Amino acid sequence: MEYTKITAEHISYFQEILGAAYVHADIESLENHSKDHTEDLVFLPELVLKPGTTVEVSKILSYCNEHTIAVTARGAGTGLSGGSLPVKGGVSLSMTRFNKIHYIDEKNFQVSVQPGVINEALQNAVREKGLFYPVDPASKGSCFLGGNVSLSSGGPRAVKYGTTRDYVLNLEVVLANGEIIETGANTLKYSTGYNLTHLKIGSEGTLGVITNIILKLIPAPKNTLLMLAPFASPEQACEAVNHIFLAGANPSACEFIEPDGFRLAANMLQISFDIPEEVQAYLLIEVDGNEMPHLMDECEKISEVLYQNQALDVLFAETAAQKEYFWKLRRSIGEATKYNNTYKEEDTVVPRGTLPELFKGVKEIGARYGFRSVCYGHAGDGNLHVNILKDQLSDEFWNHTLDQAIVEIFTLCKKLGGTISGEHGIGLVQQKFMPVVMPAINLQLMKAIKLAFDPKEILNPGKVYNS
Amino acid sequence: MEYTKITAEHISYFQEILGAAYVHADIESLENHSKDHTEDLVFLPELVLKPGTTVEVSKILSYCNEHTIAVTARGAGTGLSGGSLPVKGGVSLSMTRFNKIHYIDEKNFQVSVQPGVINEALQNAVREKGLFYPVDPASKGSCFLGGNVSLSSGGPRAVKYGTTRDYVLNLEVVLANGEIIETGANTLKYSTGYNLTHLKIGSEGTLGVITNIILKLIPAPKNTLLMLAPFASPEQACEAVNHIFLAGANPSACEFIEPDGFRLAANMLQISFDIPEEVQAYLLIEVDGNEMPHLMDECEKISEVLYQNQALDVLFAETAAQKEYFWKLRRSIGEATKYNNTYKEEDTVVPRGTLPELFKGVKEIGARYGFRSVCYGHAGDGNLHVNILKDQLSDEFWNHTLDQAIVEIFTLCKKLGGTISGEHGIGLVQQKFMPVVMPAINLQLMKAIKLAFDPKEILNPGKVYNS
Repeated sequence: MEYTKITAEHISYFQEILGAAYVHADIESLENHSKDHTEDLVFLPELVLKPGTTVEVSKILSYCNEHTIAVTARGAGTGLSGGSLPVKGGVSLSMTRFNKIHYIDEKNFQVSVQPGVINEALQNAVREKGLFYPVDPASKGSCFLGGNVSLSSGGPRAVKYGTTRDYVLNLEVVLANGEIIETGANTLKYSTGYNLTHLKIGSEGTLGVITNIILKLIPAPKNTLLMLAPFASPEQACEAVNHIFLAGANPSACEFIEPDGFRLAANMLQISFDIPEEVQAYLLIEVDGNEMPHLMDECEKISEVLYQNQALDVLFAETAAQKEYFWKLRRSIGEATKYNNTYKEEDTVVPRGTLPELFKGVKEIGARYGFRSVCYGHAGDGNLHVNILKDQLSDEFWNHTLDQAIVEIFTLCKKLGGTISGEHGIGLVQQKFMPVVMPAINLQLMKAIKLAFDPKEILNPGKVYNS
Repeated sequence: MEYTKITAEHISYFQEILGAAYVHADIESLENHSKDHTEDLVFLPELVLKPGTTVEVSKILSYCNEHTIAVTARGAGTGLSGGSLPVKGGVSLSMTRFNKIHYIDEKNFQVSVQPGVINEALQNAVREKGLFYPVDPASKGSCFLGGNVSLSSGGPRAVKYGTTRDYVLNLEVVLANGEIIETGANTLKYSTGYNLTHLKIGSEGTLGVITNIILKLIPAPKNTLLMLAPFASPEQACEAVNHIFLAGANPSACEFIEPDGFRLAANMLQISFDIPEEVQAYLLIEVDGNEMPHLMDECEKISEVLYQNQALDVLFAETAAQKEYFWKLRRSIGEATKYNNTYKEEDTVVPRGTLPELFKGVKEIGARYGFRSVCYGHAGDGNLHVNILKDQLSDEFWNHTLDQAIVEIFTLCKKLGGTISGEHGIGLVQQKFMPVVMPAINLQLMKAIKLAFDPKEILNPGKVYNS
């Protein structure tokens, strides 16, 4: 597909419909919209537009569709697969002005929220009403809900509460041709034709632009307890995860962290975190609920399982400050890895019980190819983030040979019943690996769906399916 | 679309690939595959095929696609929207031989199961391993899992545990052209391109034929408690439902039943059920969990809310037999309504808090048009089954005028944020009402998706979207 380059005439039109203050062609704006949190990738858009209403989005898309101008919607730019990078130039459609919570419906446990609202801002707003939006990506302090929907983002609590997908009831979406639709209804159940809501979730801005979101809420649990368990062996830690669930426990987080992850995070945050030499892995486990005695029972059960599975210790976070300290360390690992090194992050996911096998395989592949990795992630979901560090590796190895190793890792995921992304999406950087986990027919179906929604492929071109 | 009529040559081909024992053209077989549980509708197929393997399904579809023969997959035929009726003739593809549970993976809490397994058979099999498949349509004793996936079926427990959609991890599907795909991976999280699994769920056999299902399981709760609360006013009962959730309770079922529902069921089952004159509505409420004291606490909390909301009484089912008695009555209402009368069932669903308004509206519309309705269903989900009874109404009214009343009911659903089907699907009978809740563009998108999967529209033609 050839896209039309932005001209002065196009800019005039956009200024007319948005006002000049929301049309940016200066180099600083273009640079600010050329990157996300994925490696060091840079793709300049030709123009940045900041619409404020659904009708404005509709006018922009209608115009761009007519003129075959590429449009890449952008949330907070915290994505980890390059999904918001305008790889074909054109318009970067910034959704920052869609930052309103329309209403919190306490009677129906629902919220109507715009896609440019920060995840944590929503969490805090509904918490004030005794309600709970549990989805908490590591970037919750900055990522937008629109991006969360576009990737079906998860986070630590997904193990108990599910991912974004499990909370989206209905979406307002502007299609490529400017038409505005609702994808479903504001109901807990829906069997009314093909589920356009679920198709849109996780489609990474390629099927339409989200302009409003109806989310399900649940009553907020009143208490949490947090435990940290060090292990002498990562495989033992992974094995322990499995036994926690086999024992019938239902933790609200069950995170696996290699010591290097905590080391890098502590270093970046300039806080101290003492890691005894024998420790080769940590599990960070949270339980939540209303009645403290029930939570204590749950912790005791989990603690028993941990010791039975060779945990070296089980440390409880005694205070709110201690809890925040552990979580801050955990949430900073991704950023800290990048802060210290060039890296690639793979979002592997497998059936939970096969995690020890995946971890062992990743390390064996790393040893064979000669790279170091820091692994951490949502062990309770079988979702392991594998951060491969460049260290002193050659550019030649990094840019070419490493792909073979990644193919081996993903081939192992597939063999174990898993896939190449649990929550980060495909975006730009994982496209080439899609054939490792699915045959051409699946990609052809995706392409056909894409063309049904966006025949001229103006929306986020160059992403997800191999075009 | 014009479909090719079945000829002797086609029959020979099918006999060759399946064996003659699984190819049926006799009138009794055709009649047996001409109905489901929807009203009195009858559509004869021209041929019944009973494949036993995925490869056989693939060969059948490939052949039918080449020859433009209509194929309607059929599970147990318990559907309530006519989804399995072969309205264009052709092949009725019976999935009864796909009746194996391949394995129950106790380590990963997963099961690999064929679509012709009865819902309750799966529930019982996994329960023996201490695991739980919570989705329980009223027809659980006879309905097939393949049908459940095709409609995203719910049931009483959906209020706590979600519908079929929430348990499907991965599907093996045969496409219209005979190609066999897996729609996803066997993982709890999945952000690997467009979600073909979720698109397939609820698509009512129009996008492909399901030949295997990977379902998520959860640990089985050890105990349940069941309460029945009569009310003098249906609106009060609906209002009470809302307050149960506002109080933070999390019941595993929260069913609303009009006394006539219980009356009809008791009559059909020939069991006695005494309904005091002042009772105008019932709530049947279940809680489940492991620790009996926690369950008792939960019941006490709910009981308090019920009395605060004018419940006339709160009766506890004291024994397993009493629980079964209440549930049997509840599950039999649908069948009993049909047993006694000609009826139409509407599967209305709205945000839970608006249920009193929906109920009131349904009765007001009924009074105005002069029909009687029996309402019951999953009040905790806002999902109210409205059974309209023919009684002495004229055929003219029943076949023509009544549609206007149904449009009014669905218009009210839409106004309240709801839609026309929560769990029964669109199938044949609800198609004409789709425009009440969605604009033409949504239907066009569905049609375009359909054509991406099945360009010759051989699969379950004449269903879901208006073609």
